[in-house]
Amino acid sequence: MKRHAFSQQEYVRRRAAVRDALGSHGLDAVALSSPANITYLTGYPACGSAYVPQCLVYDAIDDKLVFLCRPMDSVGALAMSILTEAEVATYPEALVGGGAGQLETFLFQRIAERLPGRAVGLECGHLSASALAIANSVLHACRDVSGLVNWVRLVKSKEELAVHREAAAISDLAMRAAVRTADVGVREADVAAAIMHALCRGTDTFGGDWPSHPEIPSGPRLRAPHLSWVDDVYRPGSQINCELGGWRFRYVSPLARTISIGAPDERLRHLHDATVEAAETILPMLRPGVSCSEIWRCFNSAISRYGYRKLSRCGYAIGLEWDGGTASFQNGDSTLLCKDMTFHLMLGMWEDPNASCVLSETLAISDNGAEVFGRTPRKILLAGEDA
Amino acid sequence: MKRHAFSQQEYVRRRAAVRDALGSHGLDAVALSSPANITYLTGYPACGSAYVPQCLVYDAIDDKLVFLCRPMDSVGALAMSILTEAEVATYPEALVGGGAGQLETFLFQRIAERLPGRAVGLECGHLSASALAIANSVLHACRDVSGLVNWVRLVKSKEELAVHREAAAISDLAMRAAVRTADVGVREADVAAAIMHALCRGTDTFGGDWPSHPEIPSGPRLRAPHLSWVDDVYRPGSQINCELGGWRFRYVSPLARTISIGAPDERLRHLHDATVEAAETILPMLRPGVSCSEIWRCFNSAISRYGYRKLSRCGYAIGLEWDGGTASFQNGDSTLLCKDMTFHLMLGMWEDPNASCVLSETLAISDNGAEVFGRTPRKILLAGEDA
Repeated sequence: MKRHAFSQQEYVRRRAAVRDALGSHGLDAVALSSPANITYLTGYPACGSAYVPQCLVYDAIDDKLVFLCRPMDSVGALAMSILTEAEVATYPEALVGGGAGQLETFLFQRIAERLPGRAVGLECGHLSASALAIANSVLHACRDVSGLVNWVRLVKSKEELAVHREAAAISDLAMRAAVRTADVGVREADVAAAIMHALCRGTDTFGGDWPSHPEIPSGPRLRAPHLSWVDDVYRPGSQINCELGGWRFRYVSPLARTISIGAPDERLRHLHDATVEAAETILPMLRPGVSCSEIWRCFNSAISRYGYRKLSRCGYAIGLEWDGGTASFQNGDSTLLCKDMTFHLMLGMWEDPNASCVLSETLAISDNGAEVFGRTPRKILLAGEDA
Repeated sequence: MKRHAFSQQEYVRRRAAVRDALGSHGLDAVALSSPANITYLTGYPACGSAYVPQCLVYDAIDDKLVFLCRPMDSVGALAMSILTEAEVATYPEALVGGGAGQLETFLFQRIAERLPGRAVGLECGHLSASALAIANSVLHACRDVSGLVNWVRLVKSKEELAVHREAAAISDLAMRAAVRTADVGVREADVAAAIMHALCRGTDTFGGDWPSHPEIPSGPRLRAPHLSWVDDVYRPGSQINCELGGWRFRYVSPLARTISIGAPDERLRHLHDATVEAAETILPMLRPGVSCSEIWRCFNSAISRYGYRKLSRCGYAIGLEWDGGTASFQNGDSTLLCKDMTFHLMLGMWEDPNASCVLSETLAISDNGAEVFGRTPRKILLAGEDA
């Protein structure tokens, strides 16, 4: 049985959207190297093999796909995607680690043979630095189109929204596991273990997909995002700024909350109340036609009434990867919101030297404002509670 | 308290080794963008922020480090590395997501200001495809040196070997958790959850670091590596080809074993016996002076006596990342083994259509042959056993 989340019609819709985007750039075909974009057009969770070059070629003129991959990965590609045997081609294993661009040259030659005379775009972001130069010498009128399909992915179908909701249910369970486990004397690694267990286990009816690392900074690292945990144990009054993501079929619905071990202090409560109020000011604004920069401006306007500010973006488009490098709720981002785009509204409040907190929601843009996928209460979570 | 695994002398040793490598390429300085190489010279676990450009600049002439990063990441860099405040510089947050290479241009201008007249190498592998072109227009005599520091990392110090052994102890515990959890009717996601829990929890005395995803293919995906798990449950006779990695301070010691739910069939036992015998033939050969291709040849010679072969490489250098793209036990790789290099001897036997198995060890090259770090028995593991 084939394993992918979506109907054949869904993949037809996606190819049509990519074809339109290629056409508007004067391109006939594209060679994709980004795992998320390969997954988008085929269902194959391509990230496991991303350390060796692989390309999904989409010929928009003939509406044809070919996946060029390592021999050992063809089994997985056939088992986990819409691709048929005729649509999977392998390169010689001996080229892996061959150096000097041998593998890239081979790949681009095969692409050139399959697409004679076509104007081909190439995603260089996941290939070696020299790949674009090699591609230009082998392929006709080749351009780097990294990001092009990422933008196509912004607006979600009903099937994608359903998967986002499943991922959000997993995030809710993982946050509960963190809150239940965190306690005085417990190690940071034990809270991480509880979160990871919950992210993989999923619900009783469906499992979680490969999770990303939760961020659970505490103590002297409380205001530092993007760190791994350390061997410390929690103390009375410890605070955890917890950001995690439940995954389902490679879609992620992140969730962030601040957890307090014991009663939170006055400064934290003041900052958190302000953050919740500012968040709830902008949630109804997340409607079609509003610009991303307007969301950033309104959040800062609301939070400034409490004496706070947020210089970094307060959210970004989400879906088949955590950050696809497209639209952000940020000063200067003129992207207009459309119905069924999904975002991670991420309020990491790290500017004040005396207090920090995190609060986030994964949501869809709708005519009535944001549809928030998760159900975790929007408050400081008290360790040991079973909400 | 600063959080990194190693002594100041260890970092002095590493800088000296990088200085020698730069000198042999006619370079005075290097700008590193690979998270593993940034970690190597500073202790900072840089992978969490790798989705935005960041550079560690090492000026070998003056033996000086400067880390150029996003403002919010400077807190973590100072908390988790040997870097002092004078050695961390931030770029404006507004450049994140600015597009059109603005951030790269800014970064390279700062590097040029700090290194007037120096011959600078740049790691392009983790920067955008256009980064090398921008760098060449801004920096003096800039060359792509992706991989240069990766090769320096091959030979490990006593301190690094100690961390590898801790990571291997975590891998042993995670494999036991998989064996204890796997059973008829259990979901693949539940085995994944048990493994991830054990990888994060670590031992009673030290926690695990951010883990990578275990691979636990089974059923129709048994012969496919690099896949995530699915919503299936195990049945009587199910086989799992389990490959996982315990991490400690960003060093990984992977471990692979085949797990059987119920008694393994005759074909699997025949292939596995052959694989164990061939592995044990080459373990004593893993001594200084032997070439990587010779290891591949001897493994294939030993396994061919049972009628099997392995076309893909049978191992690769390991350490601060799972696969640093350097030496492999592969036909044609003439790298000579040196004392205290570490490798993942990875025997994924996927060539036979009727049986497959995995068997691996993380090990160090010593004068007496391989020092294997893990203690998991080299046999098919029976689900439910508590070895």
